[in-house]
Amino acid sequence: VSEEELAWRCECGAYLNCPPDAFRYDPNPALPGIWRYASSLPLERPDRPVTLGEGMSPFVSCDWAYNGGTARIHCKFDAISPTGSYKDRGIAVQVSRLRELGVQRIADDSSGNAGASMAAYCAAADIPCDIYVPEAASEAKCLQIAMYGANLVKVPGPRENAGTAARESAKGAYYGGHNWSPYYIHGIKTCSFEIFEQLGNEVPDNIVCPAGQGCTIRGAFFAFSEIMKAGKSARMPRIFGVQSEACPPLYEAWRRGEKKPHPIERKPTIAEGIASLVALRGDATLDVIAKSNGGMAAVSEKAIWEGLQQLAKKGLYVEPTTATALAGLTKFLEEGVIRPDEKTVVVLTGFGLKTTELIMRLRQNPPA
Amino acid sequence: VSEEELAWRCECGAYLNCPPDAFRYDPNPALPGIWRYASSLPLERPDRPVTLGEGMSPFVSCDWAYNGGTARIHCKFDAISPTGSYKDRGIAVQVSRLRELGVQRIADDSSGNAGASMAAYCAAADIPCDIYVPEAASEAKCLQIAMYGANLVKVPGPRENAGTAARESAKGAYYGGHNWSPYYIHGIKTCSFEIFEQLGNEVPDNIVCPAGQGCTIRGAFFAFSEIMKAGKSARMPRIFGVQSEACPPLYEAWRRGEKKPHPIERKPTIAEGIASLVALRGDATLDVIAKSNGGMAAVSEKAIWEGLQQLAKKGLYVEPTTATALAGLTKFLEEGVIRPDEKTVVVLTGFGLKTTELIMRLRQNPPA
Repeated sequence: VSEEELAWRCECGAYLNCPPDAFRYDPNPALPGIWRYASSLPLERPDRPVTLGEGMSPFVSCDWAYNGGTARIHCKFDAISPTGSYKDRGIAVQVSRLRELGVQRIADDSSGNAGASMAAYCAAADIPCDIYVPEAASEAKCLQIAMYGANLVKVPGPRENAGTAARESAKGAYYGGHNWSPYYIHGIKTCSFEIFEQLGNEVPDNIVCPAGQGCTIRGAFFAFSEIMKAGKSARMPRIFGVQSEACPPLYEAWRRGEKKPHPIERKPTIAEGIASLVALRGDATLDVIAKSNGGMAAVSEKAIWEGLQQLAKKGLYVEPTTATALAGLTKFLEEGVIRPDEKTVVVLTGFGLKTTELIMRLRQNPPA
Repeated sequence: VSEEELAWRCECGAYLNCPPDAFRYDPNPALPGIWRYASSLPLERPDRPVTLGEGMSPFVSCDWAYNGGTARIHCKFDAISPTGSYKDRGIAVQVSRLRELGVQRIADDSSGNAGASMAAYCAAADIPCDIYVPEAASEAKCLQIAMYGANLVKVPGPRENAGTAARESAKGAYYGGHNWSPYYIHGIKTCSFEIFEQLGNEVPDNIVCPAGQGCTIRGAFFAFSEIMKAGKSARMPRIFGVQSEACPPLYEAWRRGEKKPHPIERKPTIAEGIASLVALRGDATLDVIAKSNGGMAAVSEKAIWEGLQQLAKKGLYVEPTTATALAGLTKFLEEGVIRPDEKTVVVLTGFGLKTTELIMRLRQNPPA
């Protein structure tokens, strides 16, 4: 399938990937943010990006107490980004590529953060866009999407309905769904390039991520694969994904040794950003977790809320979706899966200011 | 007055400053964020800072349309910071210094952003703090302050009452008001060091800032003075401050050629972060605007709201306080005070996500 025909998936219905050998980790320190990784990006003209100044987000170390001890951990505070979520890295690359391809209008679906990001970068690129969100999406995120000038469409029912609506609406036009995009992930992976450099060109022992569609997980694997291929390191970190017990299709598959997301019944969760029943590249996500000798956990709503509060008291304010990773970290430490003397990085994906309403509700009415 | 006695002001009641000759612009590119400017910071041990990864915020260029033309402008998107506002630069330096001095508890007063920042950095430093805010402070900011674990005190009446309450409460303890602090401004000035470097070691023609207490303005003047002293440039940019017509004590003084903030009657404004009746260092702020051959403007609530919307459609989402600078920019361009072919930087101080509620109200009920 050629890009020139603007296919967003294969004729057989499968998702598309960029050829993995196309990329080379070779940072150019003279360039700003993610654009220093031009040799790793699927762009013809990485010197002419659509940019809002994304990348080089904070890297903060702190002590993390759990039942049984305290570990020194490193937080990649990737919520500190032009729209308040790590999605900006991926969307900046995706929109830059779609502009190169001459796309005239973009439709995307999102639980909120990717939609805000897509709306912002389309605004910067002067490309009209339609953002489909589930009706229950956070008020702050919906307002943000509308303020960027996007056409915001609220779709009743679960998250998946927004995807269907976006693809149907796109019809002849290009469907720019970030999860379907072969370009998006190559922006996301730059987060792990920065982790490597912010550790002083060292590979951590463990990376812990919230897991919904799994893009931070696959991004980390791609990045460290490129770092190894470039001869800068001989090893891969263990990559861990964490889901809410209320919606754990990847965790259930991992636990059973299955290769595809396990069908589950979804319950309501405060981790709205990862409440995905269907993970499009779920097979690939499970595969890289296994290849990295990593693992998964499912955590309770109570543990997520506790993780959020514990992190805020270190000066790092995140949304509940992100706190899933902290709850998982605590679990991994308590079970001895991760040792306190190991070098562990947690990826903080979304800013607390994105979910003021929800956090206010949780303070008044904490999960039991 | 010696620092060891932990005075926060002179015995005569005046504010204190650090000796200006103590600082030298000599960036160390190997260090992260604002800590690369260690030689410009009032710290004994800048290698042991209280940090949340502040600094090196986005620098984004875009076209800005006004009645009569379009100018290419540069936005220093300093809202993209660990707590969502530019205050983090100043508070990181201030809290680092207060920890060096052995301060055990800090009280500050704020319209919201500095309070959130102080709460976060005190959390990171493990120093208890009390944050006094006006009762009308934004819900999102109050929640953020509380989540960091600070003791949040809402004080009825105008902004100034929060200051009085904080100073009275501090009693024997150290009052850590950021506006009174001699350290805070030296963190704020690093924003302009970055502007210089992000322009490729060039001084812009103009810098436009929202003006309340005037710290971005004085910070810019300090920074470019140090850059000149270091022989990296021979000139100072023109520095412009913008206030709301509803609360313009600095503008009214500037217009009249007075040396101190002019007494005014304050009206309600959506620019809550700069609704200061009393600018503590107002004399110094007016002085540096004059020395830089800059100027001031006062803008309507309607123009602020329009500036906010126009900027959001470039992918940059800010709070109304920040948009004051954009409304001012439009005015300066339309009046020919700033020419479109000049190199103009606007400092974007606070993230839109900080004021979701207010922006929602403005969409429903725009100012006439």
